[in-house]
Amino acid sequence: MTSIPRGVRDFPPEEMRKRNFVFETIARVYRTYGYREIETPAFEFLDTLAKKKAGGESINKEIFKFEDLGGRWLGLRFDLTVPTARFIAENPNLPKPFKRFQIGRVWRYEEPQAGRFREFWQADADVFGSATAESDLDCLSAIIAALKALGFKDFTVKVNSRKLLEEIAASGGVKRESASDFFRIIDKLEKIGEKGVKQELKEKKLPVSENLFKLLLTEGEPDKILSKLKKELNDKKSAEELEEFFKLADNFGVSKYLKLSLSLARGLDYYTGIVFEIKVKGMEKYGSVAGGGRYDNLIALYGKESLPAVGMSIGIERIIEIMKEEKLFPDLGSEPKVLVVPIGKTLEKAIELTQKLRSNGIPADIDLMRRNVGKMMNYANSLGIPFVAVLGENEVKEKKVTLKDMESGKQEAIDEKILIKKLSPQ
Amino acid sequence: MTSIPRGVRDFPPEEMRKRNFVFETIARVYRTYGYREIETPAFEFLDTLAKKKAGGESINKEIFKFEDLGGRWLGLRFDLTVPTARFIAENPNLPKPFKRFQIGRVWRYEEPQAGRFREFWQADADVFGSATAESDLDCLSAIIAALKALGFKDFTVKVNSRKLLEEIAASGGVKRESASDFFRIIDKLEKIGEKGVKQELKEKKLPVSENLFKLLLTEGEPDKILSKLKKELNDKKSAEELEEFFKLADNFGVSKYLKLSLSLARGLDYYTGIVFEIKVKGMEKYGSVAGGGRYDNLIALYGKESLPAVGMSIGIERIIEIMKEEKLFPDLGSEPKVLVVPIGKTLEKAIELTQKLRSNGIPADIDLMRRNVGKMMNYANSLGIPFVAVLGENEVKEKKVTLKDMESGKQEAIDEKILIKKLSPQ
Repeated sequence: MTSIPRGVRDFPPEEMRKRNFVFETIARVYRTYGYREIETPAFEFLDTLAKKKAGGESINKEIFKFEDLGGRWLGLRFDLTVPTARFIAENPNLPKPFKRFQIGRVWRYEEPQAGRFREFWQADADVFGSATAESDLDCLSAIIAALKALGFKDFTVKVNSRKLLEEIAASGGVKRESASDFFRIIDKLEKIGEKGVKQELKEKKLPVSENLFKLLLTEGEPDKILSKLKKELNDKKSAEELEEFFKLADNFGVSKYLKLSLSLARGLDYYTGIVFEIKVKGMEKYGSVAGGGRYDNLIALYGKESLPAVGMSIGIERIIEIMKEEKLFPDLGSEPKVLVVPIGKTLEKAIELTQKLRSNGIPADIDLMRRNVGKMMNYANSLGIPFVAVLGENEVKEKKVTLKDMESGKQEAIDEKILIKKLSPQ
Repeated sequence: MTSIPRGVRDFPPEEMRKRNFVFETIARVYRTYGYREIETPAFEFLDTLAKKKAGGESINKEIFKFEDLGGRWLGLRFDLTVPTARFIAENPNLPKPFKRFQIGRVWRYEEPQAGRFREFWQADADVFGSATAESDLDCLSAIIAALKALGFKDFTVKVNSRKLLEEIAASGGVKRESASDFFRIIDKLEKIGEKGVKQELKEKKLPVSENLFKLLLTEGEPDKILSKLKKELNDKKSAEELEEFFKLADNFGVSKYLKLSLSLARGLDYYTGIVFEIKVKGMEKYGSVAGGGRYDNLIALYGKESLPAVGMSIGIERIIEIMKEEKLFPDLGSEPKVLVVPIGKTLEKAIELTQKLRSNGIPADIDLMRRNVGKMMNYANSLGIPFVAVLGENEVKEKKVTLKDMESGKQEAIDEKILIKKLSPQ
């Protein structure tokens, strides 16, 4: 008995229909928002993926690596952002802003656990070349619209700004070179609690004043928090940028979901500005379903020019898990729609009928194993095929087909033309 | 300047639209033929991929291999058939026949050359669990229908049977254990010519009688060739099977494309019965666009039970190359459909209008860089966006939008409702 490596999966047809529904829905919404699809290779030079400022060292350990015959190290992509940043840097003549989406698989050497895989899918939307608040919101509102199209109704979007967080940290005595460590630890607040965070900060010899902590725990209506912060901070710029963001969020129709959360930092090192994290209201126990932020310095790692960028990613595996658990998938119908069943010496005619149905765009199947009627009916049932078209010798003689509705059990002998009309997509 | 490894590619939006057209067209036809989509992991245990009878030793060299942290060897899949065979063997309770399709990327460590890549896409359709001639034809006719839907009109399908070829070889003095070497060399006839093949046969100490050669060069109308062969061969079974295949091909509506070609063997070791290779008529110079055959012994390599199987694969890269060269792509329109252009202090209103268009399913974009009108128009032109919706302060006051047709240059001030109606998909 062979099997597959840990953390990767096969997807049988029933599962693929669900996954395709998710992929197609997200792609349709992204397109409606003006994002255009690109694709990049599954593997890149390891150097490209393992830049410290790109993935950071923590990701480096999780990259599947291998040497090519020429002795160069390659790695499977661990996200879609880094390969796209490399692509953007190498194609400086793309019209700006360049709004791209990408849906595809990525690989991480993580310890597999419930809902975590070594091969998993992401669905990204990013804007390259614009630093405005409306680009942040364009991207965020595309993600929210995609989640809505999947059937999710209400959301909590945690928003923060890395710049603001840096200023808060600086005001609390955190040095700029320690900021990245500080963010990574602060980001664990929800996971390991206040006590755990304090412990880790101590271990890294980072400041842990009660005042700083109280401030970081602030969460809620942005207006009040920001006007208070503007009084306390020396540099007010990032607070003002956030104010503009929250104001335009009204026009984008997403402000009702937003919550300013001063502890949100997000793990990856490359974020430089606004960061987001989305949970579905009432389904918080599953964790966040999408997240992202601004990363204005990533492109410069791969080319000559620096280019502002903002992007978000929907975690496909978690989305599918929730949609199954919460029964959010619509009825995806069945495939195929009809099974042609030859009885007696009618195989040739049955083949011709099947081909005619197919050429009319009707998903049709025919028994390929010369089985008896009972077995053919079982086959139709096991696949959930809703109709069976019986072609016996009598039917051939009278130029009819007996169409049987597998659910009601009703059947009628009809002309081929009427059969095609009945089964054609509406 | 970073770049990407040899033989792999980035696909910018214009390219992805073409590729998506090909993927979606093929998937739609496969579904119409009752094939259901599955997906398997990008990597498998190397043992799974490198079984001698699966890929054969020649493929083994081309597998991208790497060790996981536990010291087990993994490999990137080199085709979609072997992973699917493993999947089928591990899921013995799937209803039979199991008709699956799979479109995805595969990797081979080949020397990159024109039209050959180290990462490329295949589109497979296979029938598992049936050994009848109608399953061979169901699969073949699905592939032909997919090629037709892509815009190809006429085909030459070379057909042969490995069993028949074995009998012919045996009658010419080739021993059964050398058959696989013999097939591989014979299959190169078109590539290296009669002389080259004879040379290679000699090197491998395989028989090269003139009679055998003359027979192998036979190509054409199956009826005559088969009735002649039936007189000459001891075992007539495979000739009779082929006769049945060619007879049913009439009912499937594909016999006009078929040609019996006794030298066709196809490279991979796992074929056991009928083999196919498809070229587009008038476009033979590009080589074959699809191929496949019967492989009744592959599933047993991965499980307890043996299961007959037949399948074919469309080579996506070649298809796309031909469709570009021969200008077979239809007009794929443009994305997005409209750019909203705010003039003066109308950004908020313009955002609201854009969001309204999007929520009506209209692919809409808005300037995200606060640029002047000229630059916005350039952006619309560079993306080929067909309409621009101008929202100046006057328009806002009069509750109108100026819709400009970018091709004709015509423009008119209209109500928002009329705008939505005009831009909605028909």
